[in-house]
Amino acid sequence: MRVNGGDFRTIWLEPDSNIVRVIDQRLLPHRFEVLSLHTVADAERAIATMVVRGAPLIGATAAYGVALAMLEDPSDDHLASDGRLLMASRPTAVNLAWAVRRMQQALGPFAPADRAGAAFVEAARICDEDVASCQAIGRWGADRLIQHRRADRPLQILTHCNAGWLAAVDWGTALAPVYELQRRGVPVHVWVDETRPRNQGASLTAWELGQQGIDHTVIVDNVGGHLMQHGLVDLCIVGADRVAANGDVCNKIGTYLKALAAIDNAVPFYAAMPHSTIDWELECGRLIPIEQRGAEEVTDISGLDSTGQLVSVRLTPAQSRVANYAFDITPARLVTALITERGCCPATQAALHALYAGPAKASADA
Amino acid sequence: MRVNGGDFRTIWLEPDSNIVRVIDQRLLPHRFEVLSLHTVADAERAIATMVVRGAPLIGATAAYGVALAMLEDPSDDHLASDGRLLMASRPTAVNLAWAVRRMQQALGPFAPADRAGAAFVEAARICDEDVASCQAIGRWGADRLIQHRRADRPLQILTHCNAGWLAAVDWGTALAPVYELQRRGVPVHVWVDETRPRNQGASLTAWELGQQGIDHTVIVDNVGGHLMQHGLVDLCIVGADRVAANGDVCNKIGTYLKALAAIDNAVPFYAAMPHSTIDWELECGRLIPIEQRGAEEVTDISGLDSTGQLVSVRLTPAQSRVANYAFDITPARLVTALITERGCCPATQAALHALYAGPAKASADA
Repeated sequence: MRVNGGDFRTIWLEPDSNIVRVIDQRLLPHRFEVLSLHTVADAERAIATMVVRGAPLIGATAAYGVALAMLEDPSDDHLASDGRLLMASRPTAVNLAWAVRRMQQALGPFAPADRAGAAFVEAARICDEDVASCQAIGRWGADRLIQHRRADRPLQILTHCNAGWLAAVDWGTALAPVYELQRRGVPVHVWVDETRPRNQGASLTAWELGQQGIDHTVIVDNVGGHLMQHGLVDLCIVGADRVAANGDVCNKIGTYLKALAAIDNAVPFYAAMPHSTIDWELECGRLIPIEQRGAEEVTDISGLDSTGQLVSVRLTPAQSRVANYAFDITPARLVTALITERGCCPATQAALHALYAGPAKASADA
Repeated sequence: MRVNGGDFRTIWLEPDSNIVRVIDQRLLPHRFEVLSLHTVADAERAIATMVVRGAPLIGATAAYGVALAMLEDPSDDHLASDGRLLMASRPTAVNLAWAVRRMQQALGPFAPADRAGAAFVEAARICDEDVASCQAIGRWGADRLIQHRRADRPLQILTHCNAGWLAAVDWGTALAPVYELQRRGVPVHVWVDETRPRNQGASLTAWELGQQGIDHTVIVDNVGGHLMQHGLVDLCIVGADRVAANGDVCNKIGTYLKALAAIDNAVPFYAAMPHSTIDWELECGRLIPIEQRGAEEVTDISGLDSTGQLVSVRLTPAQSRVANYAFDITPARLVTALITERGCCPATQAALHALYAGPAKASADA
């Protein structure tokens, strides 16, 4: 996707090197900077400190993390131990474990001396597959979303957090259909939830939509229900950090509240994700571990001061305690449909199994 | 209530003067400062810029504003024109119009030369009545809320925005029952919604609960649904900026989302308000004008920097548009009961009329 007129992915290998490059998402929208990952520890830290975030991008970074580990020490022990280290860097996104296990399975048959080379090939394949998955989500999603358009105005879409190209390798999950609709010439307008406490909506989604020239309006997380009560939202679409086998959707904290407002106002509510986000072995959403993050994400916030410096300021009284749950579960009963690279399906175990049972079909517009 | 160990109201007349003093709520929780209002323009500005906020306190400030206007010019024309000016300073809280009309009706019969004196007496009476109302809300509310306590833990209360003593003259509306429970020795814990964009929860509610020694935890607005899904909230209680005759509750933006989560998880949802907040002539909530405020409340936020200075920082991309709706409507069907100075009643027109038809009764513990 576009950054200042140039084409970027969120993660790439520096040509003729073993250096992995990522966009430092902690500095957006104020500064665009690229960081280099040289070691598996760099990759683990980039995931844990949210230099990179978003379920598909976490998976891609972990895959390159395994490749960097193989440069350091391609032994079986190291393949296992660094895999565990990477898997522990964030607890909720299932793509992380999925990517590490895929790398381990792909590399196991190779002799240690050949593992580093094979690992970079496999990590690049994971990235390319993610891009293709997201493009397919975009096509299937666009086919579906356009059905909700009213003739008298641009399609009004509400999204929570960032499930755009910054959350994946390219295109994104929830925003891929938005970019595809733009490509098809359909007028769209996106209501962007700020998404406290880390403000991924106000900082990342608003920024990437602006870079792509898509009309959007930032709102605080409290506003979505009011907009839906007043007919100002045609549909909601979000990404997912993990989807249970029954269709329950784990996503950024606050997603559940928007799904409740959607159903109360007969607004369709979609979640978009590639197959790697589906946890087939997990019966229902209540079993998904919910990450609790540091208090400072709530007590402090950073932004640009009047001199253009990025500074952090304290919001809450010093003696007040804080709790910081990062995700919540939207029960499948509130989800109109899941949108995957295989197409759309109801959020049920049977429908998900049917979607993935046979060979993939192409969308009408593919 | 207590501030640094001393007793305060939010608004008072400086002894032996015509100077009205108010707490500057824009600086809390970081700085405690008192401002002087000398003229009706000062009062109007204090309301419009949210030096003072909260439906009951807006009414009290408008009452003193009329008194200050009578010092300047006690003519009929001025009584009418300054009343209009004050009523336009905020559009949603009905207490504002209620207080101005009450002042105008009280002062009309007086000769202009006697109006200023009578006005200060009437404004003080409005303030004292508000305190008595809030205390009664506290008693009725405590009687009701204690029924939801589980034996194994403090009563778990979630509140949105600030409807504490800072929103009234003293005691508050939604928090009056909390203070009354504390007085009765009942252990309570309050989940405090941050309440974007102006953060009245994180700044005002957290501060006043801390000053009163009440256990509390600040959360971002996205978290409440997750807490309710996990049984961590025994009840929600909020204030109101206006209640329609049918029991629909207009309150700070985001209240509706919490009410949806409450009903989805069988958590009781209460709204507390004095009679002056009830708009008997307004059929339903959809007819209440919803204030839209400036974009800078969303794009920028202020807090303490590392040197202890109060600074404002920019959060959003410069080119992103912003919408800032200040209130939403919680339909009466989602409200378990209204708590007023007359007692608790279902959120219906019939119940409200019955509550206010006869003489007032005292709560069991009065």
